[in-house]
Amino acid sequence: MSATDVELISSTAEMRERAAHLRSEGKRIGFVPTMGALHEGHLSLVTAAAKRADVVVVSVFVNPTQFGPTEDFASYPRDIERDAALAEQSGCDILFVPTAREIYPDHYATVVHVQKLTQKMCGAFRPGHFDGVTTVVAKLLNIVRPHFAVFGQKDGQQVAVIERMVEDLDMDVDIVRVPTVREPDGLALSSRNAYLSTEERARATVLHEALRHALSLYRSGIVTVPRVLDEMQTIIRGKEGVELQYCVAVDSRTLEDVSELKAGVMIALAAFLGKTRLIDNVVLK
Amino acid sequence: MSATDVELISSTAEMRERAAHLRSEGKRIGFVPTMGALHEGHLSLVTAAAKRADVVVVSVFVNPTQFGPTEDFASYPRDIERDAALAEQSGCDILFVPTAREIYPDHYATVVHVQKLTQKMCGAFRPGHFDGVTTVVAKLLNIVRPHFAVFGQKDGQQVAVIERMVEDLDMDVDIVRVPTVREPDGLALSSRNAYLSTEERARATVLHEALRHALSLYRSGIVTVPRVLDEMQTIIRGKEGVELQYCVAVDSRTLEDVSELKAGVMIALAAFLGKTRLIDNVVLK
Repeated sequence: MSATDVELISSTAEMRERAAHLRSEGKRIGFVPTMGALHEGHLSLVTAAAKRADVVVVSVFVNPTQFGPTEDFASYPRDIERDAALAEQSGCDILFVPTAREIYPDHYATVVHVQKLTQKMCGAFRPGHFDGVTTVVAKLLNIVRPHFAVFGQKDGQQVAVIERMVEDLDMDVDIVRVPTVREPDGLALSSRNAYLSTEERARATVLHEALRHALSLYRSGIVTVPRVLDEMQTIIRGKEGVELQYCVAVDSRTLEDVSELKAGVMIALAAFLGKTRLIDNVVLK
Repeated sequence: MSATDVELISSTAEMRERAAHLRSEGKRIGFVPTMGALHEGHLSLVTAAAKRADVVVVSVFVNPTQFGPTEDFASYPRDIERDAALAEQSGCDILFVPTAREIYPDHYATVVHVQKLTQKMCGAFRPGHFDGVTTVVAKLLNIVRPHFAVFGQKDGQQVAVIERMVEDLDMDVDIVRVPTVREPDGLALSSRNAYLSTEERARATVLHEALRHALSLYRSGIVTVPRVLDEMQTIIRGKEGVELQYCVAVDSRTLEDVSELKAGVMIALAAFLGKTRLIDNVVLK
Protein backbone atom coordinates (compact mmCIF):
# COMPACT_ATOMS: atom_id res chain seq x y z
CA MET A 1 0.00 0.00 0.00
CA SER A 2 1.56 3.30 -1.07
CA ALA A 3 1.55 6.30 1.26
CA THR A 4 -1.42 8.61 0.82
CA ASP A 5 -1.71 12.37 0.92
CA VAL A 6 -4.85 12.34 3.00
CA GLU A 7 -4.39 14.30 6.24
CA LEU A 8 -4.69 12.01 9.25
CA ILE A 9 -6.02 13.54 12.48
CA SER A 10 -6.46 11.49 15.64
CA SER A 11 -6.82 14.22 18.27
CA THR A 12 -10.29 15.71 18.81
CA ALA A 13 -8.72 19.05 19.81
CA GLU A 14 -6.76 19.14 16.56
CA MET A 15 -9.85 18.22 14.54
CA ARG A 16 -11.84 21.02 16.20
CA GLU A 17 -9.11 23.57 15.48
CA ARG A 18 -8.80 22.40 11.90
CA ALA A 19 -12.57 22.69 11.41
CA ALA A 20 -12.69 26.14 13.00
CA HIS A 21 -9.88 27.29 10.74
CA LEU A 22 -11.55 25.88 7.63
CA ARG A 23 -14.81 27.60 8.58
CA SER A 24 -13.03 30.89 9.18
CA GLU A 25 -11.66 30.62 5.64
CA GLY A 26 -15.21 30.17 4.34
CA LYS A 27 -14.62 26.54 3.35
CA ARG A 28 -17.64 24.27 3.13
CA ILE A 29 -17.04 21.07 5.14
CA GLY A 30 -18.68 17.79 4.16
CA PHE A 31 -18.55 14.89 6.61
CA VAL A 32 -18.87 11.13 6.26
CA PRO A 33 -18.86 9.26 9.59
CA THR A 34 -17.92 5.59 9.19
CA MET A 35 -16.74 2.61 11.20
CA GLY A 36 -14.05 1.93 8.57
CA ALA A 37 -13.81 -1.30 6.56
CA LEU A 38 -14.71 0.97 3.66
CA HIS A 39 -16.45 -0.50 0.63
CA GLU A 40 -18.04 1.02 -2.49
CA GLY A 41 -21.08 1.98 -0.41
CA HIS A 42 -19.00 4.23 1.85
CA LEU A 43 -17.05 5.52 -1.13
CA SER A 44 -20.27 6.63 -2.80
CA LEU A 45 -20.91 8.72 0.33
CA VAL A 46 -17.43 10.24 0.09
CA THR A 47 -17.96 10.98 -3.61
CA ALA A 48 -21.32 12.59 -2.83
CA ALA A 49 -19.66 14.71 -0.14
CA ALA A 50 -16.82 15.74 -2.46
CA LYS A 51 -19.34 17.03 -5.02
CA ARG A 52 -20.89 19.39 -2.46
CA ALA A 53 -17.94 20.39 -0.25
CA ASP A 54 -14.62 22.22 -0.36
CA VAL A 55 -13.17 19.87 2.23
CA VAL A 56 -14.33 16.31 2.93
CA VAL A 57 -13.75 14.80 6.36
CA VAL A 58 -14.22 11.05 6.78
CA SER A 59 -14.18 9.66 10.32
CA VAL A 60 -13.24 6.09 11.10
CA PHE A 61 -14.34 5.04 14.58
CA VAL A 62 -15.56 1.59 15.52
CA ASN A 63 -17.92 2.86 18.17
CA PRO A 64 -18.12 0.37 21.06
CA THR A 65 -21.39 1.77 22.45
CA GLN A 66 -23.43 0.83 19.40
CA PHE A 67 -22.56 -2.87 19.65
CA GLY A 68 -24.50 -5.17 21.93
CA PRO A 69 -22.61 -7.46 24.35
CA THR A 70 -23.06 -10.48 22.04
CA GLU A 71 -22.34 -8.55 18.84
CA ASP A 72 -19.23 -8.30 16.68
CA PHE A 73 -17.34 -5.30 18.13
CA ALA A 74 -14.10 -7.26 18.67
CA SER A 75 -14.14 -8.94 15.27
CA TYR A 76 -15.39 -5.94 13.28
CA PRO A 77 -12.90 -5.51 10.39
CA ARG A 78 -10.23 -2.81 10.86
CA ASP A 79 -7.61 -1.70 8.31
CA ILE A 80 -6.85 1.99 8.55
CA GLU A 81 -4.19 2.13 5.80
CA ARG A 82 -6.51 0.55 3.31
CA ASP A 83 -9.34 2.84 4.44
CA ALA A 84 -7.12 5.92 4.06
CA ALA A 85 -6.13 4.98 0.51
CA LEU A 86 -9.70 4.22 -0.56
CA ALA A 87 -11.12 7.34 1.06
CA GLU A 88 -8.54 9.54 -0.60
CA GLN A 89 -9.26 8.08 -4.03
CA SER A 90 -12.90 9.11 -3.59
CA GLY A 91 -12.12 12.69 -2.57
CA CYS A 92 -11.48 12.56 1.18
CA ASP A 93 -9.18 15.36 2.41
CA ILE A 94 -9.05 14.62 6.14
CA LEU A 95 -9.33 11.22 7.80
CA PHE A 96 -10.38 11.67 11.43
CA VAL A 97 -9.49 8.60 13.48
CA PRO A 98 -10.15 9.32 17.16
CA THR A 99 -9.34 6.87 19.92
CA ALA A 100 -12.08 5.41 22.13
CA ARG A 101 -10.24 6.95 25.07
CA GLU A 102 -10.69 10.45 23.64
CA ILE A 103 -14.30 9.89 22.64
CA TYR A 104 -15.29 8.32 25.97
CA PRO A 105 -12.87 9.54 28.65
CA ASP A 106 -13.18 8.85 32.38
CA HIS A 107 -16.36 10.30 33.90
CA TYR A 108 -18.10 10.21 30.53
CA ALA A 109 -21.84 10.12 31.30
CA THR A 110 -24.01 11.53 28.49
CA VAL A 111 -26.44 9.77 26.15
CA VAL A 112 -28.45 11.30 23.34
CA HIS A 113 -31.63 9.27 23.04
CA VAL A 114 -34.22 9.48 20.27
CA GLN A 115 -37.53 8.09 21.45
CA LYS A 116 -40.21 6.30 19.40
CA LEU A 117 -38.26 5.87 16.12
CA THR A 118 -35.65 3.73 17.89
CA GLN A 119 -38.11 1.34 19.53
CA LYS A 120 -38.99 -0.67 16.43
CA MET A 121 -37.24 -2.46 13.55
CA CYS A 122 -33.53 -2.84 14.37
CA GLY A 123 -34.06 -0.97 17.65
CA ALA A 124 -36.38 -3.71 18.94
CA PHE A 125 -33.65 -6.34 18.44
CA ARG A 126 -30.57 -4.27 19.30
CA PRO A 127 -31.32 -2.54 22.63
CA GLY A 128 -29.10 0.50 23.12
CA HIS A 129 -27.76 0.40 19.56
CA PHE A 130 -29.32 3.67 18.42
CA ASP A 131 -28.34 5.44 21.65
CA GLY A 132 -24.78 4.53 20.75
CA VAL A 133 -25.26 5.82 17.21
CA THR A 134 -26.96 9.13 18.06
CA THR A 135 -24.56 9.88 20.89
CA VAL A 136 -21.42 9.32 18.83
CA VAL A 137 -22.85 11.13 15.80
CA ALA A 138 -23.79 14.13 17.99
CA LYS A 139 -20.22 14.17 19.31
CA LEU A 140 -18.63 13.80 15.88
CA LEU A 141 -20.83 16.56 14.43
CA ASN A 142 -19.77 18.86 17.28
CA ILE A 143 -16.09 18.04 16.78
CA VAL A 144 -15.99 18.17 12.96
CA ARG A 145 -18.58 21.00 12.66
CA PRO A 146 -19.49 20.12 9.06
CA HIS A 147 -21.95 22.08 6.95
CA PHE A 148 -23.47 18.76 5.93
CA ALA A 149 -23.05 15.09 6.78
CA VAL A 150 -23.72 12.17 4.46
CA PHE A 151 -25.41 8.90 5.41
CA GLY A 152 -26.35 5.87 3.35
CA GLN A 153 -29.97 4.93 2.74
CA LYS A 154 -28.84 1.34 3.33
CA ASP A 155 -29.12 2.04 7.06
CA GLY A 156 -32.58 3.51 6.58
CA GLN A 157 -33.64 3.58 10.21
CA GLN A 158 -30.30 5.06 11.25
CA VAL A 159 -30.56 8.02 8.89
CA ALA A 160 -34.17 8.71 9.94
CA VAL A 161 -33.12 8.65 13.61
CA ILE A 162 -30.20 10.99 12.92
CA GLU A 163 -32.38 13.41 10.96
CA ARG A 164 -34.79 13.42 13.92
CA MET A 165 -31.96 14.13 16.39
CA VAL A 166 -30.48 16.92 14.28
CA GLU A 167 -33.84 18.62 13.88
CA ASP A 168 -34.85 18.11 17.53
CA LEU A 169 -31.58 19.43 18.96
CA ASP A 170 -31.41 22.32 16.47
CA MET A 171 -28.02 21.16 15.26
CA ASP A 172 -26.72 23.40 12.49
CA VAL A 173 -25.98 20.73 9.88
CA ASP A 174 -27.72 19.32 6.82
CA ILE A 175 -28.16 15.55 6.55
CA VAL A 176 -27.73 14.16 3.04
CA ARG A 177 -29.08 10.68 2.17
CA VAL A 178 -27.25 8.69 -0.52
CA PRO A 179 -28.81 5.65 -2.26
CA THR A 180 -27.73 2.12 -1.37
CA VAL A 181 -24.92 0.65 -3.49
CA ARG A 182 -25.48 -2.98 -4.50
CA GLU A 183 -23.50 -5.89 -5.89
CA PRO A 184 -24.40 -6.86 -9.47
CA ASP A 185 -26.77 -9.52 -8.09
CA GLY A 186 -28.54 -6.96 -5.89
CA LEU A 187 -27.00 -7.64 -2.47
CA ALA A 188 -26.61 -4.34 -0.59
CA LEU A 189 -22.97 -3.58 0.21
CA SER A 190 -22.12 -3.99 3.88
CA SER A 191 -18.92 -4.47 5.84
CA ARG A 192 -20.64 -7.49 7.35
CA ASN A 193 -20.95 -9.23 3.96
CA ALA A 194 -17.33 -10.25 4.56
CA TYR A 195 -18.58 -12.60 7.29
CA LEU A 196 -20.71 -14.64 4.83
CA SER A 197 -19.65 -18.13 3.74
CA THR A 198 -19.92 -18.89 0.02
CA GLU A 199 -23.26 -20.60 0.62
CA GLU A 200 -24.60 -17.78 2.76
CA ARG A 201 -23.46 -15.23 0.20
CA ALA A 202 -25.44 -17.06 -2.50
CA ARG A 203 -28.56 -17.20 -0.32
CA ALA A 204 -28.32 -13.54 0.70
CA THR A 205 -29.61 -12.35 -2.67
CA VAL A 206 -33.09 -13.38 -1.57
CA LEU A 207 -33.35 -10.21 0.54
CA HIS A 208 -33.11 -7.94 -2.47
CA GLU A 209 -35.30 -10.33 -4.48
CA ALA A 210 -38.05 -9.87 -1.90
CA LEU A 211 -37.65 -6.08 -1.99
CA ARG A 212 -37.72 -6.09 -5.79
CA HIS A 213 -40.87 -8.17 -5.67
CA ALA A 214 -42.47 -5.56 -3.40
CA LEU A 215 -41.42 -2.84 -5.85
CA SER A 216 -42.96 -4.71 -8.77
CA LEU A 217 -46.22 -5.22 -6.85
CA TYR A 218 -46.27 -1.50 -6.02
CA ARG A 219 -45.65 -0.59 -9.66
CA SER A 220 -48.49 -2.85 -10.72
CA GLY A 221 -50.82 -0.95 -8.37
CA ILE A 222 -50.90 -3.34 -5.41
CA VAL A 223 -50.50 -1.08 -2.35
CA THR A 224 -52.03 -3.09 0.51
CA VAL A 225 -49.21 -3.46 3.01
CA PRO A 226 -50.20 -6.81 4.63
CA ARG A 227 -50.42 -8.49 1.22
CA VAL A 228 -47.08 -7.12 0.02
CA LEU A 229 -45.26 -8.03 3.25
CA ASP A 230 -46.86 -11.46 3.19
CA GLU A 231 -45.56 -12.19 -0.31
CA MET A 232 -42.09 -10.95 0.68
CA GLN A 233 -42.05 -13.23 3.70
CA THR A 234 -43.10 -16.17 1.56
CA ILE A 235 -40.15 -15.52 -0.78
CA ILE A 236 -37.66 -15.25 2.08
CA ARG A 237 -39.00 -18.23 4.01
CA GLY A 238 -38.72 -20.28 0.82
CA LYS A 239 -34.94 -19.89 1.01
CA GLU A 240 -33.27 -22.33 3.40
CA GLY A 241 -30.77 -20.84 5.88
CA VAL A 242 -32.23 -17.33 5.89
CA GLU A 243 -33.98 -16.32 9.11
CA LEU A 244 -36.11 -13.22 8.70
CA GLN A 245 -36.08 -10.95 11.76
CA TYR A 246 -38.50 -8.27 10.61
CA CYS A 247 -40.08 -6.98 7.43
CA VAL A 248 -42.04 -3.71 7.63
CA ALA A 249 -43.45 -0.83 5.61
CA VAL A 250 -43.01 2.56 7.31
CA ASP A 251 -42.82 6.25 6.51
CA SER A 252 -39.15 6.77 5.61
CA ARG A 253 -38.89 9.95 7.75
CA THR A 254 -41.08 9.27 10.81
CA LEU A 255 -40.76 5.44 10.68
CA GLU A 256 -44.45 5.24 11.54
CA ASP A 257 -46.23 2.14 10.21
CA VAL A 258 -48.26 2.67 7.05
CA SER A 259 -51.14 0.61 5.73
CA GLU A 260 -50.75 1.60 2.07
CA LEU A 261 -47.71 1.80 -0.16
CA LYS A 262 -47.02 5.24 -1.66
CA ALA A 263 -44.12 7.57 -2.41
CA GLY A 264 -41.92 8.07 0.66
CA VAL A 265 -42.69 4.67 2.17
CA MET A 266 -39.69 2.54 3.13
CA ILE A 267 -39.97 -1.25 2.96
CA ALA A 268 -37.25 -2.57 5.25
CA LEU A 269 -36.08 -5.90 6.53
CA ALA A 270 -33.45 -7.62 8.62
CA ALA A 271 -32.41 -11.26 8.41
CA PHE A 272 -29.80 -13.63 9.76
CA LEU A 273 -27.67 -15.76 7.46
CA GLY A 274 -26.00 -18.04 9.95
CA LYS A 275 -24.57 -15.68 12.53
CA THR A 276 -24.46 -12.70 10.20
CA ARG A 277 -27.26 -10.18 10.44
CA LEU A 278 -28.00 -8.21 7.26
CA ILE A 279 -30.42 -5.34 6.64
CA ASP A 280 -31.79 -3.84 3.47
CA ASN A 281 -34.58 -1.54 2.30
CA VAL A 282 -36.12 0.29 -0.62
CA VAL A 283 -37.84 3.69 -0.54
CA LEU A 284 -40.80 4.06 -2.88
CA LYS A 285 -40.92 6.92 -5.38
CA MET B 1 -43.38 49.92 32.40
CA SER B 2 -41.59 51.98 29.77
CA ALA B 3 -40.65 50.44 26.43
CA THR B 4 -37.18 48.96 26.30
CA ASP B 5 -34.53 48.92 23.61
CA VAL B 6 -33.72 45.28 24.12
CA GLU B 7 -34.20 43.28 20.91
CA LEU B 8 -36.95 40.71 21.30
CA ILE B 9 -36.67 37.51 19.24
CA SER B 10 -39.24 34.74 19.46
CA SER B 11 -38.46 32.71 16.34
CA THR B 12 -35.71 30.11 16.59
CA ALA B 13 -34.85 30.61 12.90
CA GLU B 14 -34.41 34.34 13.46
CA MET B 15 -32.28 33.72 16.57
CA ARG B 16 -30.04 31.33 14.63
CA GLU B 17 -29.58 33.83 11.80
CA ARG B 18 -28.89 36.64 14.23
CA ALA B 19 -26.26 34.51 16.01
CA ALA B 20 -24.63 33.44 12.74
CA HIS B 21 -24.46 37.06 11.65
CA LEU B 22 -22.97 38.19 14.97
CA ARG B 23 -20.36 35.42 14.78
CA SER B 24 -19.48 36.34 11.19
CA GLU B 25 -18.82 39.87 12.46
CA GLY B 26 -16.45 38.46 15.07
CA LYS B 27 -18.75 39.37 17.95
CA ARG B 28 -18.40 37.40 21.18
CA ILE B 29 -21.81 36.10 22.30
CA GLY B 30 -22.61 35.52 25.98
CA PHE B 31 -25.75 33.63 26.89
CA VAL B 32 -27.90 33.46 30.02
CA PRO B 33 -30.70 30.86 29.81
CA THR B 34 -33.52 31.57 32.30
CA MET B 35 -37.12 30.66 33.01
CA GLY B 36 -37.90 34.36 33.50
CA ALA B 37 -39.23 35.83 36.78
CA LEU B 38 -35.86 37.52 36.88
CA HIS B 39 -34.40 38.53 40.24
CA GLU B 40 -31.03 39.88 41.35
CA GLY B 41 -29.58 36.37 41.05
CA HIS B 42 -30.35 36.22 37.34
CA LEU B 43 -29.25 39.81 36.88
CA SER B 44 -25.85 38.98 38.36
CA LEU B 45 -25.55 36.35 35.60
CA VAL B 46 -26.45 38.94 32.96
CA THR B 47 -23.93 41.38 34.43
CA ALA B 48 -21.25 38.69 34.43
CA ALA B 49 -22.06 37.90 30.79
CA ALA B 50 -21.95 41.58 29.80
CA LYS B 51 -18.44 41.87 31.25
CA ARG B 52 -17.16 39.08 28.99
CA ALA B 53 -19.23 39.48 25.81
CA ASP B 54 -19.90 41.86 22.95
CA VAL B 55 -23.52 40.76 22.77
CA VAL B 56 -25.54 39.26 25.63
CA VAL B 57 -28.49 37.00 24.83
CA VAL B 58 -30.91 36.15 27.65
CA SER B 59 -33.51 33.46 26.97
CA VAL B 60 -36.79 33.28 28.84
CA PHE B 61 -38.46 29.90 28.46
CA VAL B 62 -40.49 28.19 31.15
CA ASN B 63 -39.52 24.71 30.03
CA PRO B 64 -42.40 22.28 30.60
CA THR B 65 -40.22 19.17 30.42
CA GLN B 66 -38.21 20.02 33.53
CA PHE B 67 -41.30 20.19 35.76
CA GLY B 68 -42.76 17.06 37.30
CA PRO B 69 -46.51 16.39 36.97
CA THR B 70 -47.18 17.61 40.51
CA GLU B 71 -44.83 20.58 40.28
CA ASP B 72 -45.47 24.27 39.66
CA PHE B 73 -45.26 24.63 35.86
CA ALA B 74 -48.70 26.25 35.54
CA SER B 75 -48.20 28.66 38.44
CA TYR B 76 -44.55 29.51 37.74
CA PRO B 77 -44.37 33.34 37.65
CA ARG B 78 -44.34 34.92 34.16
CA ASP B 79 -43.94 38.64 33.33
CA ILE B 80 -42.04 39.17 30.11
CA GLU B 81 -42.21 42.98 30.08
CA ARG B 82 -40.75 43.22 33.53
CA ASP B 83 -38.10 40.62 32.60
CA ALA B 84 -37.17 42.57 29.45
CA ALA B 85 -36.73 45.83 31.38
CA LEU B 86 -34.65 44.20 34.13
CA ALA B 87 -32.49 42.23 31.70
CA GLU B 88 -31.77 45.33 29.65
CA GLN B 89 -30.73 47.31 32.71
CA SER B 90 -28.11 44.62 33.43
CA GLY B 91 -26.68 44.60 29.92
CA CYS B 92 -28.87 42.23 27.92
CA ASP B 93 -28.94 43.02 24.19
CA ILE B 94 -31.24 40.28 22.89
CA LEU B 95 -34.10 38.66 24.76
CA PHE B 96 -34.90 35.29 23.18
CA VAL B 97 -38.41 34.17 24.07
CA PRO B 98 -39.26 31.04 22.08
CA THR B 99 -42.66 29.37 22.21
CA ALA B 100 -43.07 25.80 23.51
CA ARG B 101 -44.49 24.94 20.09
CA GLU B 102 -41.22 25.93 18.40
CA ILE B 103 -39.03 24.22 20.98
CA TYR B 104 -41.05 20.99 21.04
CA PRO B 105 -42.89 20.69 17.70
CA ASP B 106 -44.91 17.68 16.57
CA HIS B 107 -42.82 14.51 16.24
CA TYR B 108 -40.27 15.86 18.74
CA ALA B 109 -38.52 12.78 20.20
CA THR B 110 -35.01 13.52 21.50
CA VAL B 111 -33.68 13.54 25.05
CA VAL B 112 -30.17 14.39 26.21
CA HIS B 113 -29.54 12.36 29.34
CA VAL B 114 -26.60 12.72 31.72
CA GLN B 115 -26.14 9.54 33.73
CA LYS B 116 -24.81 9.19 37.30
CA LEU B 117 -24.69 12.90 38.27
CA THR B 118 -28.47 13.18 37.80
CA GLN B 119 -29.39 10.18 39.95
CA LYS B 120 -28.77 11.79 43.33
CA MET B 121 -29.63 14.97 45.23
CA CYS B 122 -32.45 16.80 43.39
CA GLY B 123 -32.42 14.13 40.69
CA ALA B 124 -33.49 11.46 43.17
CA PHE B 125 -36.58 13.47 44.09
CA ARG B 126 -37.41 15.03 40.72
CA PRO B 127 -37.37 12.15 38.18
CA GLY B 128 -36.87 13.45 34.64
CA HIS B 129 -36.07 16.97 35.80
CA PHE B 130 -32.45 17.00 34.63
CA ASP B 131 -33.34 15.35 31.31
CA GLY B 132 -35.61 18.33 30.75
CA VAL B 133 -32.82 20.73 31.72
CA THR B 134 -30.03 19.17 29.65
CA THR B 135 -32.24 18.71 26.61
CA VAL B 136 -33.48 22.29 26.54
CA VAL B 137 -30.04 23.70 27.31
CA ALA B 138 -28.51 21.64 24.47
CA LYS B 139 -31.17 23.02 22.14
CA LEU B 140 -30.74 26.61 23.31
CA LEU B 141 -26.95 26.40 22.99
CA ASN B 142 -27.36 25.12 19.42
CA ILE B 143 -29.83 27.90 18.55
CA VAL B 144 -28.01 30.81 20.23
CA ARG B 145 -24.47 29.50 19.47
CA PRO B 146 -22.85 31.50 22.28
CA HIS B 147 -19.13 31.55 22.99
CA PHE B 148 -19.99 31.10 26.66
CA ALA B 149 -23.08 30.51 28.79
CA VAL B 150 -23.53 31.62 32.38
CA PHE B 151 -25.17 29.59 35.15
CA GLY B 152 -25.69 30.30 38.83
CA GLN B 153 -23.91 28.30 41.51
CA LYS B 154 -27.25 28.40 43.38
CA ASP B 155 -28.35 25.47 41.19
CA GLY B 156 -25.14 23.62 41.95
CA GLN B 157 -26.16 20.22 40.66
CA GLN B 158 -27.61 21.74 37.49
CA VAL B 159 -24.39 23.53 36.55
CA ALA B 160 -22.32 20.38 37.21
CA VAL B 161 -24.67 18.35 35.01
CA ILE B 162 -24.50 20.94 32.23
CA GLU B 163 -20.70 21.10 32.40
CA ARG B 164 -20.67 17.30 32.10
CA MET B 165 -23.00 17.38 29.07
CA VAL B 166 -21.02 20.12 27.31
CA GLU B 167 -17.76 18.27 27.80
CA ASP B 168 -19.20 14.86 26.90
CA LEU B 169 -20.90 16.06 23.72
CA ASP B 170 -17.90 18.19 22.67
CA MET B 171 -20.07 21.28 22.52
CA ASP B 172 -18.05 24.34 21.59
CA VAL B 173 -19.05 26.62 24.48
CA ASP B 174 -17.55 27.65 27.81
CA ILE B 175 -19.67 27.33 30.94
CA VAL B 176 -19.22 30.12 33.46
CA ARG B 177 -20.33 29.67 37.10
CA VAL B 178 -21.48 32.76 39.00
CA PRO B 179 -21.79 32.85 42.81
CA THR B 180 -25.17 32.69 44.53
CA VAL B 181 -26.81 36.02 45.32
CA ARG B 182 -28.42 36.20 48.77
CA GLU B 183 -30.87 38.37 50.67
CA PRO B 184 -29.31 40.38 53.53
CA ASP B 185 -30.35 37.60 55.96
CA GLY B 186 -28.65 34.94 53.83
CA LEU B 187 -31.58 33.39 51.96
CA ALA B 188 -30.49 32.45 48.45
CA LEU B 189 -32.47 34.33 45.80
CA SER B 190 -34.95 32.13 43.94
CA SER B 191 -38.04 32.77 41.86
CA ARG B 192 -39.77 30.31 44.18
CA ASN B 193 -39.15 32.51 47.24
CA ALA B 194 -42.24 34.42 46.03
CA TYR B 195 -44.34 31.42 47.06
CA LEU B 196 -43.31 31.70 50.73
CA SER B 197 -45.73 33.00 53.37
CA THR B 198 -44.35 35.55 55.83
CA GLU B 199 -43.82 32.78 58.38
CA GLU B 200 -42.16 30.45 55.89
CA ARG B 201 -39.92 33.27 54.68
CA ALA B 202 -38.74 33.87 58.25
CA ARG B 203 -38.03 30.16 58.78
CA ALA B 204 -36.21 29.80 55.44
CA THR B 205 -33.10 31.51 56.77
CA VAL B 206 -32.27 28.31 58.65
CA LEU B 207 -31.00 26.75 55.40
CA HIS B 208 -28.23 29.29 55.06
CA GLU B 209 -27.60 29.18 58.81
CA ALA B 210 -26.89 25.46 58.51
CA LEU B 211 -24.58 26.02 55.55
CA ARG B 212 -22.76 28.79 57.43
CA HIS B 213 -22.37 26.48 60.39
CA ALA B 214 -20.76 23.90 58.11
CA LEU B 215 -18.42 26.59 56.78
CA SER B 216 -17.39 27.60 60.28
CA LEU B 217 -16.75 23.98 61.26
CA TYR B 218 -14.62 23.57 58.13
CA ARG B 219 -12.68 26.74 58.90
CA SER B 220 -12.02 25.49 62.42
CA GLY B 221 -10.52 22.31 60.97
CA ILE B 222 -13.44 19.92 61.35
CA VAL B 223 -13.60 18.06 58.04
CA THR B 224 -15.38 14.78 58.86
CA VAL B 225 -18.43 14.79 56.62
CA PRO B 226 -20.83 12.72 58.79
CA ARG B 227 -20.23 15.00 61.77
CA VAL B 228 -20.72 18.20 59.76
CA LEU B 229 -23.89 16.96 58.05
CA ASP B 230 -25.20 15.74 61.38
CA GLU B 231 -24.81 19.16 63.00
CA MET B 232 -26.46 20.79 59.97
CA GLN B 233 -29.41 18.44 60.21
CA THR B 234 -29.77 19.17 63.90
CA ILE B 235 -29.97 22.88 63.15
CA ILE B 236 -32.58 22.45 60.41
CA ARG B 237 -34.68 19.94 62.34
CA GLY B 238 -34.70 22.37 65.25
CA LYS B 239 -36.74 24.76 63.11
CA GLU B 240 -40.45 23.95 63.02
CA GLY B 241 -42.06 23.85 59.55
CA VAL B 242 -38.88 23.09 57.63
CA GLU B 243 -38.70 19.61 56.16
CA LEU B 244 -35.20 18.67 55.03
CA GLN B 245 -35.14 16.55 51.87
CA TYR B 246 -31.41 15.97 51.55
CA CYS B 247 -28.15 17.35 52.85
CA VAL B 248 -24.93 16.11 51.24
CA ALA B 249 -21.23 16.85 50.73
CA VAL B 250 -20.03 16.09 47.19
CA ASP B 251 -17.32 17.03 44.74
CA SER B 252 -18.68 20.18 43.07
CA ARG B 253 -17.72 18.95 39.56
CA THR B 254 -18.31 15.17 39.62
CA LEU B 255 -20.99 15.25 42.38
CA GLU B 256 -19.39 12.14 43.85
CA ASP B 257 -19.78 11.76 47.60
CA VAL B 258 -16.81 12.79 49.70
CA SER B 259 -15.87 11.74 53.20
CA GLU B 260 -13.73 14.77 54.04
CA LEU B 261 -14.31 18.46 53.52
CA LYS B 262 -11.73 20.24 51.36
CA ALA B 263 -11.52 22.86 48.63
CA GLY B 264 -13.90 22.11 45.76
CA VAL B 265 -16.41 20.25 47.92
CA MET B 266 -20.03 21.40 47.66
CA ILE B 267 -22.30 21.09 50.67
CA ALA B 268 -25.82 21.13 49.28
CA LEU B 269 -29.35 20.74 50.62
CA ALA B 270 -33.00 20.84 49.66
CA ALA B 271 -35.91 21.45 51.99
CA PHE B 272 -39.63 22.05 51.89
CA LEU B 273 -41.22 25.05 53.57
CA GLY B 274 -44.86 24.15 53.30
CA LYS B 275 -45.34 23.34 49.64
CA THR B 276 -42.32 25.32 48.49
CA ARG B 277 -39.13 23.45 47.80
CA LEU B 278 -35.91 25.45 48.21
CA ILE B 279 -32.31 24.47 47.49
CA ASP B 280 -29.03 26.01 48.56
CA ASN B 281 -25.33 25.16 48.69
CA VAL B 282 -21.85 26.41 49.45
CA VAL B 283 -18.63 25.43 47.69
CA LEU B 284 -15.56 25.21 49.93
CA LYS B 285 -12.43 27.16 49.05
